Amino acid sequence: MSDAVNATSNRRLRVGIVGGGRGAFIGSVHRAAVELDGEALVVAGAMSSRPDIARESAAAWYLERAYTCYQEMAAAEAAASDGIDFVIVATPNDLHFPVAKTFLAAGIHVVCDKPLALRVDEGEELARLIGTGTTLFALTHNYTGYPAVRQAREMVRAGELGTLRKVMVEYTQDWLMEPVEQRGNRQALWRTDPSRAGLGGCVGDIGTHAANLLEFVTGLEIEALCADLTAFVAGRQLDDDASLLLRLRGGAKGTLVCSQVACGEENRLALRVYGTHAGLEWHQQEPNTLLHKPAGRPWQSLRTGHAYLDPAARALSRLPPGHPEGYLEAFANIYRAFMADVRRLGRREPPQRDYPGIREGLRGLRFVAGAVASSRAGSVWMRL
Amino acid sequence: MSDAVNATSNRRLRVGIVGGGRGAFIGSVHRAAVELDGEALVVAGAMSSRPDIARESAAAWYLERAYTCYQEMAAAEAAASDGIDFVIVATPNDLHFPVAKTFLAAGIHVVCDKPLALRVDEGEELARLIGTGTTLFALTHNYTGYPAVRQAREMVRAGELGTLRKVMVEYTQDWLMEPVEQRGNRQALWRTDPSRAGLGGCVGDIGTHAANLLEFVTGLEIEALCADLTAFVAGRQLDDDASLLLRLRGGAKGTLVCSQVACGEENRLALRVYGTHAGLEWHQQEPNTLLHKPAGRPWQSLRTGHAYLDPAARALSRLPPGHPEGYLEAFANIYRAFMADVRRLGRREPPQRDYPGIREGLRGLRFVAGAVASSRAGSVWMRL
Amino acid sequence: MSDAVNATSNRRLRVGIVGGGRGAFIGSVHRAAVELDGEALVVAGAMSSRPDIARESAAAWYLERAYTCYQEMAAAEAAASDGIDFVIVATPNDLHFPVAKTFLAAGIHVVCDKPLALRVDEGEELARLIGTGTTLFALTHNYTGYPAVRQAREMVRAGELGTLRKVMVEYTQDWLMEPVEQRGNRQALWRTDPSRAGLGGCVGDIGTHAANLLEFVTGLEIEALCADLTAFVAGRQLDDDASLLLRLRGGAKGTLVCSQVACGEENRLALRVYGTHAGLEWHQQEPNTLLHKPAGRPWQSLRTGHAYLDPAARALSRLPPGHPEGYLEAFANIYRAFMADVRRLGRREPPQRDYPGIREGLRGLRFVAGAVASSRAGSVWMRL
Amino acid sequence: MSDAVNATSNRRLRVGIVGGGRGAFIGSVHRAAVELDGEALVVAGAMSSRPDIARESAAAWYLERAYTCYQEMAAAEAAASDGIDFVIVATPNDLHFPVAKTFLAAGIHVVCDKPLALRVDEGEELARLIGTGTTLFALTHNYTGYPAVRQAREMVRAGELGTLRKVMVEYTQDWLMEPVEQRGNRQALWRTDPSRAGLGGCVGDIGTHAANLLEFVTGLEIEALCADLTAFVAGRQLDDDASLLLRLRGGAKGTLVCSQVACGEENRLALRVYGTHAGLEWHQQEPNTLLHKPAGRPWQSLRTGHAYLDPAARALSRLPPGHPEGYLEAFANIYRAFMADVRRLGRREPPQRDYPGIREGLRGLRFVAGAVASSRAGSVWMRL
Repeated sequence: MSDAVNATSNRRLRVGIVGGGRGAFIGSVHRAAVELDGEALVVAGAMSSRPDIARESAAAWYLERAYTCYQEMAAAEAAASDGIDFVIVATPNDLHFPVAKTFLAAGIHVVCDKPLALRVDEGEELARLIGTGTTLFALTHNYTGYPAVRQAREMVRAGELGTLRKVMVEYTQDWLMEPVEQRGNRQALWRTDPSRAGLGGCVGDIGTHAANLLEFVTGLEIEALCADLTAFVAGRQLDDDASLLLRLRGGAKGTLVCSQVACGEENRLALRVYGTHAGLEWHQQEPNTLLHKPAGRPWQSLRTGHAYLDPAARALSRLPPGHPEGYLEAFANIYRAFMADVRRLGRREPPQRDYPGIREGLRGLRFVAGAVASSRAGSVWMRL
Repeated sequence: MSDAVNATSNRRLRVGIVGGGRGAFIGSVHRAAVELDGEALVVAGAMSSRPDIARESAAAWYLERAYTCYQEMAAAEAAASDGIDFVIVATPNDLHFPVAKTFLAAGIHVVCDKPLALRVDEGEELARLIGTGTTLFALTHNYTGYPAVRQAREMVRAGELGTLRKVMVEYTQDWLMEPVEQRGNRQALWRTDPSRAGLGGCVGDIGTHAANLLEFVTGLEIEALCADLTAFVAGRQLDDDASLLLRLRGGAKGTLVCSQVACGEENRLALRVYGTHAGLEWHQQEPNTLLHKPAGRPWQSLRTGHAYLDPAARALSRLPPGHPEGYLEAFANIYRAFMADVRRLGRREPPQRDYPGIREGLRGLRFVAGAVASSRAGSVWMRL
Repeated sequence: MSDAVNATSNRRLRVGIVGGGRGAFIGSVHRAAVELDGEALVVAGAMSSRPDIARESAAAWYLERAYTCYQEMAAAEAAASDGIDFVIVATPNDLHFPVAKTFLAAGIHVVCDKPLALRVDEGEELARLIGTGTTLFALTHNYTGYPAVRQAREMVRAGELGTLRKVMVEYTQDWLMEPVEQRGNRQALWRTDPSRAGLGGCVGDIGTHAANLLEFVTGLEIEALCADLTAFVAGRQLDDDASLLLRLRGGAKGTLVCSQVACGEENRLALRVYGTHAGLEWHQQEPNTLLHKPAGRPWQSLRTGHAYLDPAARALSRLPPGHPEGYLEAFANIYRAFMADVRRLGRREPPQRDYPGIREGLRGLRFVAGAVASSRAGSVWMRL
Repeated sequence: MSDAVNATSNRRLRVGIVGGGRGAFIGSVHRAAVELDGEALVVAGAMSSRPDIARESAAAWYLERAYTCYQEMAAAEAAASDGIDFVIVATPNDLHFPVAKTFLAAGIHVVCDKPLALRVDEGEELARLIGTGTTLFALTHNYTGYPAVRQAREMVRAGELGTLRKVMVEYTQDWLMEPVEQRGNRQALWRTDPSRAGLGGCVGDIGTHAANLLEFVTGLEIEALCADLTAFVAGRQLDDDASLLLRLRGGAKGTLVCSQVACGEENRLALRVYGTHAGLEWHQQEPNTLLHKPAGRPWQSLRTGHAYLDPAARALSRLPPGHPEGYLEAFANIYRAFMADVRRLGRREPPQRDYPGIREGLRGLRFVAGAVASSRAGSVWMRL
């Protein structure tokens, strides 16, 4: 394999995908994101367990090799001289664990949709599998790929906010405000089914993004939470709304709100952080602006692409200021960092792992488990 | 007294004030608000317990009659043929109860700053005093005076939001982020002193406004809460930050956040309400816009002053659309409704009480007591 | 009269008004603005030429003295020992000149709505009347009373913008987009009638405010303009829309757009100024924010009420940051400066004239005359 | 060639590029945009006239075939069995005409950066070359690729705005506010050089985008203009700022402002259109919102991705509402429509030409020529 790996230096990387077939919104996001910088092409896939959809989807993407079974794909690609350099796992949640495990076992790097798995113990098994080896693993907590989010983290790290006191994070949507899973919506169908989505509904699907964003920017772990989960839509087994109180390491307090029944909201992920020296505010729906609120001075609008930003944030913009970048570019930034590691391995350099991975995946599983346990016990405090 | 009362029909009302002397921001707000529509003049006052400040303050306001003792003022004004029509209580919190009680006992209508009193039992005593009598009482939960807030309430009442599911309210500031009470800030001094401010710090000072706004717009009472109160500034006895989970009558869930250490925030009072048909959003700092989010349709920006608003909201604007109205006009709307009642009594008509009063005052006291008790017990749920 | 004047030191000022009777929006604005700070009361008025409306209006305002004829009022008030300290002229445009002239001749200070007069020669006659005397004259170009506008001027003056290059000012509304003057709208009736409004329609009514705001903030005079005026509504004699190119003293270029047929706009007065070091942007409909755009650095949101503002701007706020102030407060700031001069004269101190007056009035008349002449000649360049 | 053309049906299209080498911002935009939907790959290029840069750039993009001479490239690609399906012209302006002409003559479809050419006569020659043939030509007026812009056009077409009265368009930046062309900025160097950029500086570089956007949305041609062009930066030969009055076919009036010295502006392209029934407003920097201002009703925020949009606008979104799309996606939409035509020709279907082309290119050249002529003649009116 070392020859093949070495060969990554002067060609686009070859990518495989499991899941993401026709009708799955996130599949085309992964393809566009991984290919955005001209550094990779998706060439192989097991895009659906239904052969007709797998075939049609592969044709629509002009794939070189189409599979109907991911185990077969892992074996074949690992054996091929021009096999894929890594695989993307874009299936419903219940398959994340077995698919990731299969490819990792075949020595193929993995980029996996969140959540890491359905249960904490599965996540821990993946963690052991990866261990200290050289097989790479990324989890697409894509919102941390925004340049303004990176800027926020760098400012916190640099002490510009002082000691953090208060955080407020939310992620609200409305697409589950009606019982659309009872009306044939496929996205809703598996997301509201505990056997395929996991313990959490809304809190797992988007609450984990909010929690991850919060921990990413603040650098502080959620130590304890008190969660009030609700299934507002009749007949729904999993929560579609949640409100949480948070306590962070070091004494900061906060709230986390997520909802998929917040009528009129599209994809309102927003973060506020308040410290002893300054506050920060960011809204995913207008992602190129970071509000900086230094004590006693005017608010500043930090805008992506500018020379005044931290180099780590600047590196995540592809366009000059005022040329809006969005969701795809942020997603692509996760891939860019991951692929840089793939190429590093090809050059026998150590990976930098500057993207979410196993650690973030385990944090997310514990967050969901904690929130569900808290709420079931009457919305009491739980330590994570 | 009936003659004097009758005489209100063809003259500006005569107003007295207790407190609000030099250096007290809220005093001049009351004066400007009560006089804004040309329906009243402040003519008498006991503006400070310090005679020099009382005298200077009265001169600065061109008062006809200056007192240094509110008891004396109540007696004199009740006896005078041209005595005041009502009194404003604009003192620190600890004097609200005794001053209001004194004037009510003298048969003089009262407009009182919130909170109603320091303790629930004091509030209940005031409630008994007023009882079924004809002496009027208003509590200046001024934020409900904004036309857009009224519009929100009317839309909820008319069923335009359907069944409410989720509410989010916040009131954040930063003026107590440093220990300014230890550096001579008079406003901060009494607000951080339990003997003068009451049980709650931030939760009492501004959390009550947020809770009142929420109940006003939704028409739903907070049934239970789980509160996490913090005093972030060293040496401070009362909370300067609070996060609460809320459960409302009828099953809606929510969060309430208030903070006086949220670096960079001025006076960010904001409310969001989500129902089965629509959502609403309002921000006090841009108060002339109400965002309406009907399911499946574009957001609408309802703007004050327009003919398309509910008549109750339209009546609270003084200017055409696009001529910004603000805090003073909202405050004046509370006074306008109160003074209409004063004039109704003068015409021997029943009062309409379309302004916050004893009921809202008692709700506020119970909210603070509940939040403090919850937090002290480890942030557990408390029923109100 | 000197005794009466001296007597201003320890009482509210006494104000008279001509015009502003029932149905005239601007009358109540003047009353609320002049009384806002508790420094004056409107006590006398000739509020309408129709005796019934004059009587009713005076009663509604609890005036002490009601007149039906402004000449009579000027004579009586000048002679009375407790006569008015100044008069407000709030009539349609055609009466500004004769009313102002009458009161000035009677030795009574005048605050006059814009425009100064219907024609330039009338304005010049008023200028001669006032001359070097001590009778005060203010013109209510009220938008310059906003604190953020003052802040902008002080920043330009202090050189923070460097040399100005480009300006963009607009004032757009939609209330004349239909022929409402043909449907009984009284405000529209006189504003679209050349004999009562003057040469300009939209360009006179609101274009002058935009031009004044521009010159106030930049400190630069409009030297030449090229105007394209249109009457879009059939049957309308005066323009209801205008677009202008501007050349300012010193070489800056710009545009001025005004319209009363801009469907959906309320009262959108907005200014942008770009210099070699920074840009500024202000929107009247969100008046408490001034955007500052320093070269190569993040935009800053300067907010009214903060200690970081220029003292001249800070002095124009009555409330702490985050307590929205609006149109009335800005209007009242013009009155506050004017009344300070009235009191200065009472103390035999020289007036400071820190408010718009004759000079601004003449500039406005020449601006309208120039714009109309330019447009009539085929939208050619005219020097002012 | 017909075989090769037919073969487009089941593979990614093969794309060539001229220009866009290392350091040219727009090159990577074209690559990312054309490849975004997985329907094409850039495989060949003459990316620079400097061999070393051409070679390095081609290697960085993993091109299959690198050329140093565009004439050679045109000949070789036209002859190859797996030659490119179309070429992208991403050179400085002076090469647009000769390069496009060369590829068109070789029978290769062309996508060309704006402007079409340096002079009107060159543009007309290209128009003749294309004539009624089947070689396709697109001009990347990319801003019309935004879904919200398409929505605006469809609303105007459907009569939702009624008769248009007033338009305001601007495009402001600040990147030329200093003489950066004298300090080695390569982008600035050719853009400020008349021999390479053409007659217009700012008015050509970005004014044409504004004019194109205006005509695209309104469906109305600019009939006459009055332009005031300025070169504010000392030593600059071409304008860096322009203000224009516009008259549109049918009687609408308007303004167009463009500037590259507007300190603090990034890439502020904004359009407002006012008709007898409604107004519209769009800002390129927050491109996923279109403000709709129906007469007498609240403003609506139309957001991309929603089912309530016109199908033509909906088709231009790749993501659900609230997942921000930006500049690249808009650019890609131009390519998507163009490539659909390439595939149509492959299926022997008629092209739909639903993207900017020769006509828009000629309009742009005449706009610039008219603006420059107007300004040189003293800012007089010119008919286009």
